[in-house]
Amino acid sequence: MTVASSTTPIPGHHPRRTPPGAPPGTLVADPAAAAPRIALMAYGPDAIEERAEISLEDIDALRGAFPVLWLDITGLGDAAVIRDIGKKFGLHTLALEDVLNVHQRPKIDEYDDHLFIVCRMPHHEKRLETEQVSLFLGKGFVITMQERPGDCFDAVRNRLRSRRGRIRDSGPDYLTYTLLDAVTDAFFPILESVGEAVTTMEEEIMADPHPNDVRRIHGLKRDLLTIRRAVWPQREMLSTLIRDESPLIMEQTKLYLRDCFDHTFQLIDLIETYRELVSDLTDIFLSSQSTRMNEVMKVLTVIATIFMPLTLISSIYGMNFDSKASWLNMPELHWEYGYPATLAVMALIAIGMILYFRKQRWIGNSRRRRQRTHSPE
Amino acid sequence: MTVASSTTPIPGHHPRRTPPGAPPGTLVADPAAAAPRIALMAYGPDAIEERAEISLEDIDALRGAFPVLWLDITGLGDAAVIRDIGKKFGLHTLALEDVLNVHQRPKIDEYDDHLFIVCRMPHHEKRLETEQVSLFLGKGFVITMQERPGDCFDAVRNRLRSRRGRIRDSGPDYLTYTLLDAVTDAFFPILESVGEAVTTMEEEIMADPHPNDVRRIHGLKRDLLTIRRAVWPQREMLSTLIRDESPLIMEQTKLYLRDCFDHTFQLIDLIETYRELVSDLTDIFLSSQSTRMNEVMKVLTVIATIFMPLTLISSIYGMNFDSKASWLNMPELHWEYGYPATLAVMALIAIGMILYFRKQRWIGNSRRRRQRTHSPE
Amino acid sequence: MTVASSTTPIPGHHPRRTPPGAPPGTLVADPAAAAPRIALMAYGPDAIEERAEISLEDIDALRGAFPVLWLDITGLGDAAVIRDIGKKFGLHTLALEDVLNVHQRPKIDEYDDHLFIVCRMPHHEKRLETEQVSLFLGKGFVITMQERPGDCFDAVRNRLRSRRGRIRDSGPDYLTYTLLDAVTDAFFPILESVGEAVTTMEEEIMADPHPNDVRRIHGLKRDLLTIRRAVWPQREMLSTLIRDESPLIMEQTKLYLRDCFDHTFQLIDLIETYRELVSDLTDIFLSSQSTRMNEVMKVLTVIATIFMPLTLISSIYGMNFDSKASWLNMPELHWEYGYPATLAVMALIAIGMILYFRKQRWIGNSRRRRQRTHSPE
Amino acid sequence: MTVASSTTPIPGHHPRRTPPGAPPGTLVADPAAAAPRIALMAYGPDAIEERAEISLEDIDALRGAFPVLWLDITGLGDAAVIRDIGKKFGLHTLALEDVLNVHQRPKIDEYDDHLFIVCRMPHHEKRLETEQVSLFLGKGFVITMQERPGDCFDAVRNRLRSRRGRIRDSGPDYLTYTLLDAVTDAFFPILESVGEAVTTMEEEIMADPHPNDVRRIHGLKRDLLTIRRAVWPQREMLSTLIRDESPLIMEQTKLYLRDCFDHTFQLIDLIETYRELVSDLTDIFLSSQSTRMNEVMKVLTVIATIFMPLTLISSIYGMNFDSKASWLNMPELHWEYGYPATLAVMALIAIGMILYFRKQRWIGNSRRRRQRTHSPE
Amino acid sequence: MTVASSTTPIPGHHPRRTPPGAPPGTLVADPAAAAPRIALMAYGPDAIEERAEISLEDIDALRGAFPVLWLDITGLGDAAVIRDIGKKFGLHTLALEDVLNVHQRPKIDEYDDHLFIVCRMPHHEKRLETEQVSLFLGKGFVITMQERPGDCFDAVRNRLRSRRGRIRDSGPDYLTYTLLDAVTDAFFPILESVGEAVTTMEEEIMADPHPNDVRRIHGLKRDLLTIRRAVWPQREMLSTLIRDESPLIMEQTKLYLRDCFDHTFQLIDLIETYRELVSDLTDIFLSSQSTRMNEVMKVLTVIATIFMPLTLISSIYGMNFDSKASWLNMPELHWEYGYPATLAVMALIAIGMILYFRKQRWIGNSRRRRQRTHSPE
Repeated sequence: MTVASSTTPIPGHHPRRTPPGAPPGTLVADPAAAAPRIALMAYGPDAIEERAEISLEDIDALRGAFPVLWLDITGLGDAAVIRDIGKKFGLHTLALEDVLNVHQRPKIDEYDDHLFIVCRMPHHEKRLETEQVSLFLGKGFVITMQERPGDCFDAVRNRLRSRRGRIRDSGPDYLTYTLLDAVTDAFFPILESVGEAVTTMEEEIMADPHPNDVRRIHGLKRDLLTIRRAVWPQREMLSTLIRDESPLIMEQTKLYLRDCFDHTFQLIDLIETYRELVSDLTDIFLSSQSTRMNEVMKVLTVIATIFMPLTLISSIYGMNFDSKASWLNMPELHWEYGYPATLAVMALIAIGMILYFRKQRWIGNSRRRRQRTHSPE
Repeated sequence: MTVASSTTPIPGHHPRRTPPGAPPGTLVADPAAAAPRIALMAYGPDAIEERAEISLEDIDALRGAFPVLWLDITGLGDAAVIRDIGKKFGLHTLALEDVLNVHQRPKIDEYDDHLFIVCRMPHHEKRLETEQVSLFLGKGFVITMQERPGDCFDAVRNRLRSRRGRIRDSGPDYLTYTLLDAVTDAFFPILESVGEAVTTMEEEIMADPHPNDVRRIHGLKRDLLTIRRAVWPQREMLSTLIRDESPLIMEQTKLYLRDCFDHTFQLIDLIETYRELVSDLTDIFLSSQSTRMNEVMKVLTVIATIFMPLTLISSIYGMNFDSKASWLNMPELHWEYGYPATLAVMALIAIGMILYFRKQRWIGNSRRRRQRTHSPE
Repeated sequence: MTVASSTTPIPGHHPRRTPPGAPPGTLVADPAAAAPRIALMAYGPDAIEERAEISLEDIDALRGAFPVLWLDITGLGDAAVIRDIGKKFGLHTLALEDVLNVHQRPKIDEYDDHLFIVCRMPHHEKRLETEQVSLFLGKGFVITMQERPGDCFDAVRNRLRSRRGRIRDSGPDYLTYTLLDAVTDAFFPILESVGEAVTTMEEEIMADPHPNDVRRIHGLKRDLLTIRRAVWPQREMLSTLIRDESPLIMEQTKLYLRDCFDHTFQLIDLIETYRELVSDLTDIFLSSQSTRMNEVMKVLTVIATIFMPLTLISSIYGMNFDSKASWLNMPELHWEYGYPATLAVMALIAIGMILYFRKQRWIGNSRRRRQRTHSPE
Repeated sequence: MTVASSTTPIPGHHPRRTPPGAPPGTLVADPAAAAPRIALMAYGPDAIEERAEISLEDIDALRGAFPVLWLDITGLGDAAVIRDIGKKFGLHTLALEDVLNVHQRPKIDEYDDHLFIVCRMPHHEKRLETEQVSLFLGKGFVITMQERPGDCFDAVRNRLRSRRGRIRDSGPDYLTYTLLDAVTDAFFPILESVGEAVTTMEEEIMADPHPNDVRRIHGLKRDLLTIRRAVWPQREMLSTLIRDESPLIMEQTKLYLRDCFDHTFQLIDLIETYRELVSDLTDIFLSSQSTRMNEVMKVLTVIATIFMPLTLISSIYGMNFDSKASWLNMPELHWEYGYPATLAVMALIAIGMILYFRKQRWIGNSRRRRQRTHSPE
Repeated sequence: MTVASSTTPIPGHHPRRTPPGAPPGTLVADPAAAAPRIALMAYGPDAIEERAEISLEDIDALRGAFPVLWLDITGLGDAAVIRDIGKKFGLHTLALEDVLNVHQRPKIDEYDDHLFIVCRMPHHEKRLETEQVSLFLGKGFVITMQERPGDCFDAVRNRLRSRRGRIRDSGPDYLTYTLLDAVTDAFFPILESVGEAVTTMEEEIMADPHPNDVRRIHGLKRDLLTIRRAVWPQREMLSTLIRDESPLIMEQTKLYLRDCFDHTFQLIDLIETYRELVSDLTDIFLSSQSTRMNEVMKVLTVIATIFMPLTLISSIYGMNFDSKASWLNMPELHWEYGYPATLAVMALIAIGMILYFRKQRWIGNSRRRRQRTHSPE
């Protein structure tokens, strides 16, 4: 995954699927999207049934047979499938419309007998993006819907299979928590790599500002904006979930949700810290640029100041005044030591200038104050 | 529609119609505005009556005959017509005054038996503007008033005609929702085009900053300010509408209004993201400019540093010291290899300088670090 | 009125009248201020009595004879008069002290039987300032006090005289609303002129940044600060007034106050928009300056790069090496085509440089990208 | 008092007196501080007893004999004295610790039978600082404690002596108000001088930016930070005091405290306005600098562009091509009008350049647009 | 401790210990961390038992024998030990997980019979960092857990041993307060050293901006961000603790916690002040840089403007026009005073230029306005 990629698109720049003005609840699938594939995990404390791919009809048989049913739908290319699932589980069409318009902000909508939760997980392609995860929590079931194959839920699946932790003994609300926590955790390694990029760039820019750095700084800003747009609203969503009075969320699960909320807060803290540091990078770049410019100008000025007087002198003795017309006309040309004296004067001027510029610290000691340190106490 | 047009007027820079100090409720029409044209759609679950143009008198006949009456008035050039409609439907004069002063912020005012809602829809002329839509929601009627022909309600009209969705079975509150949702949706394609402009400009500015870019960045800022001024207050307006206890809004409609509220929030999210990116464009421009300047200065300095010493040397040997006066005076001129040796020294100096500047990376390797990538994990 | 005047004083930079440490309620008039002149309008639905100047004693006779008594006091040069009026109408001394210290923020203070309202109206002198208007609303009376002759209340007076609107049928609370509305409306034309100045300056700066623009931008910033300081607290003041439970404000008047509140909100909206645009002007100025600088530097570099090599060549052939000493010494000088060939080489170098700089787009095509437009959809 | 002094220390940079980890309530006096001197004023409506210096023992005799006892302690160099007073009046040790750690933010702490108020008054030494005033308000007494002699309470003392205002008839709560008001008022003249400095510097910087201005702008920023740190929390403190239910504050005093609160708000308003203006000064400085730089560069470019071609020409005719070797070799040298023609060409080039630069407005008309004014309406 | 160290890592850049997707409450220790060492202090008003190192089994014997038991665990390298302690004292596994993931924000989590508090203390290594301190407060016990040996609690331990203050007479809530207060106090000396660094750098940068200063400014910003991330959430944590209704915190302790809260507020105040001053340093650096650049450019321009005309003149008289061909060709060369006159003209031009630049204040009087002071009153 390239963090500071320069071609990151505008964060959140997904066109809406539903045509403007269509009736609410109109389900229009992205024709370019993959066809839905439904995976199922049904489990209770004692048993687990897993299907990598299941047809809509087979679901009914398993419903009710296990305390928790988790349908994981990947690919949103067929509105009919989504609609059928919606009907089977009594999901609201407004929520289903949001599932297909995959640019929702993280949020929670409470319906009569189910909760609709949207969150966004980071998506690793050639640049950083986030992908919408839609989650329905109802009595005895959790339905997740994603745009593309590949997610951050494998650890959860393994835990279900291996019976690690209390997940198999708990209800769908705990599964919901586990999934939200997995989404939250998925942002940490990304922020770490952003942090490393920031540290690297600080050093590089201070050592040698490069035109391309502007591009990379901007890429980092965009990545942070992308993450921020996914994480900030999630905080609010979790906070609503925790305060929720719905019977779908049990009291003991809220303790875990609060922990997930804390992690989201930590993410926000990191994002805001990195945003400050990245925005500082621009200042560092400009300062370093201006320092370089200053040095270039000093070189130019030193060169000009040394050579212009010398050139003038040599130019003067290249004049063709007629020494025969008057003893005043360029008698120096005929002196015995005329030439060496002139060269000596030139050398003196040059040395004098160089000493002056050294004293002014324009040349030769640019590394002077670098050793200064501040050690309090 | 030109998004980054440089001549966008100050957003919201409409002069007030009502003269300062006039009594409140004074209705003064803009003499330059078009005369009002009243269109009507009256409908119920089973029937619909549509009139492209209707006179004030004919309205009475249809009132009450249908569950919902939608009057759509285009053109605010005649205060008398507005006043008459106000009287017929019992609309408050303060609200009517706001209808004619077409620079209101989106808001909702609750009166005894009707709600007055103001929102702003984007207006496509040679530059981006917003146009005020005033909406009255009363028992059995919805009245919309617009400044100019052309709006974003055609999809709603078609839905009414074709009986798509639940719109024909619902009351005026649902129609109100549908219209507000259409206004909200109308901002999405505009923001998308802003987003595209931002992406294009980023690349262009980083590749080659151009004086005109300042103008274009400023144009984008203004467009975003214009949209922002229309969308931010709409969020508050919708939130008030959702919390409203008025019997004019049925409970099931609020679910839809909440959806519209979510979309408004998405718009705000996009606007703020683009604002950050656009304000970053100025930084990119300045950084790129300063990079160019640095390069120009380096060229100048390199040129001066190479040629000044050479010119000095040739100038020295152009001096006219009299070699006959003393063997010390410019004996080089009479050496056998004097000239070629001098040229060789010049060439050595030039080559030495060039090598030095290459090592200092002032010339020749400005594309060095461009390949650096950061691939975490 | 000059909007962008460069000598606008610090907004709000009025020295306090009351000496530090004086007892509260100490009334000290500005000795330079004009003597108070009391104008009176007493009216009811049927009759109106107007006096351009009235003595303190004559007021008593009229008090009670009319439903509403409006005293308008201009000039705060005599603390005794203010004190007497205060006594006659039972006004609190703390409020009277604030009347004389004419640098109050807009606010509302509630006393037992009267309200004390401060607002600030724009004052048109050689630069933009605001002037304090103090308003007392009591049972059956409104007292306004201003620093200087000339205000924005003439339209209100005319309405009273001509019986336009419902003003004559309403109580002192409605008069209060009318006056506050007049003050609010007085800011709109000023903001419009600021808006025009901003638009003009944008174009001018982008076309040709001028040292004086810094001064004008700063002037606009100050003017906006001045207006902002007057309008922001007014919003709060009006909001307090609307929520107020005082029997002095009737319920139906609050509808009008809410309208006035909306206008204040619109003002704030404009102020903040203009503030963003003006602060953007500084960026535009700096960008334009840096663009100019870049162009100047390019000219210098182009000139130096073209002429330095040429001068070197001509300087070389000005050397005095003795061609007789050796056939190697400057044989070119004696070639048949030496001179024309040298000139030709010089010309070739010059042309080559120019072509190179053209290709690098340093000269000749600075208007290249100016035609680019972005027309979405 | 020097407002823009460049050596102002970090605002609030007082080391803590109490060693880290010491038990709370540990009283450690600054050994460098002056020894406490206790002044007393005891008064009622009819009598007043004043002692410029009083011993701890003598206080008891006067306590209870007058309605109000005001102890004013100057110098915090002896922790024992502070502790004894604390014991005598039942003051909480946590509060006493805060008295000695003279870097508290303004605040109010409510204890069982007394209030502890901290505020900061401006201190006039060679630079702007604030000094902590600790105030205890109890039943029948007010105790103030200050670091150094010299305060802003002389007007209050005079009022007490001369019986001006209602101060002698009121209780200790009114005295508290009077003292807080005196502290608040003491900031106004300082802000006025800051305001004057800002106005002066604006003009100076725009006319002629000077390296030292950076220092002065920074000095102003620091001074404003110092004042801000003293005034902002005072607003909160007063607001708490006003809302307080404590029987120590009588209802009628709150009206006065509200007035004091208004003044604090005015101070904040001024501070924030000045902060904006001062931060604008940096922009003005940079803009002016860049304008100067532009002008310097233009001079350089103009000079180089005029002289380089001329020097080239004269250098060409200084070449030594052998006119005898060929008629093509520098025949101009032997023309009759060769020299004057060359000089004429040089003059033409120079004049042409100058005219060109005039047209480009690089020279001669830098004052062109200075007269532009904007007079709306 | 180096405050402005340039290699400070990203604040808060600790990788998470628990693998993403692991069940909540999974305890994974950092394999590089030190093994836990448990120190114990058990005390009551009359007795104290201290063990520098104690095994898990020995704790049981002491539990209950003293009113307060303080376990201080240093080193988090063994998850099993942490889990055992958790079991023994009934600590929640979610809290224990947070103990091991040592990058928590300061917070408080309330569990049924204990409180879990996280705070961060400054850590003195070769750069500024913060170290997590986890604190459990239960009935009769306080458990603190730290990553590394060395903390800021030695003063507390000494107070316990020496029976200073009321700590031995109080319960575990007071011990908790004492520890939190010690953590808070530990930030003061660090902020003081930051403040000193800021003051020093201001002077240095204004006197002589150095490329390395960018690095140092950035180091200060990072240090302040590090401190800020530790202190800001602590304010919230303390505020929750104060408002807490838990029976674990006694009412009289809250007074002390409020004092600690005040200190935290002071820290925040200092941090924000320093942040403003540090961010101002960048402005100062850029302004100083631009001032230097201006001066360099002036030198260059002055040199070029003086020498270019002189070189032109000497170059002109180096032309080889044939004076024999015409009396018009360079007759000056044969004049008696030709050479001295030419030198005189050159000298005049040079002197004239120097005088002109002096008048323009480009040279010689750069220290002119440095003495200006502003002494109001």
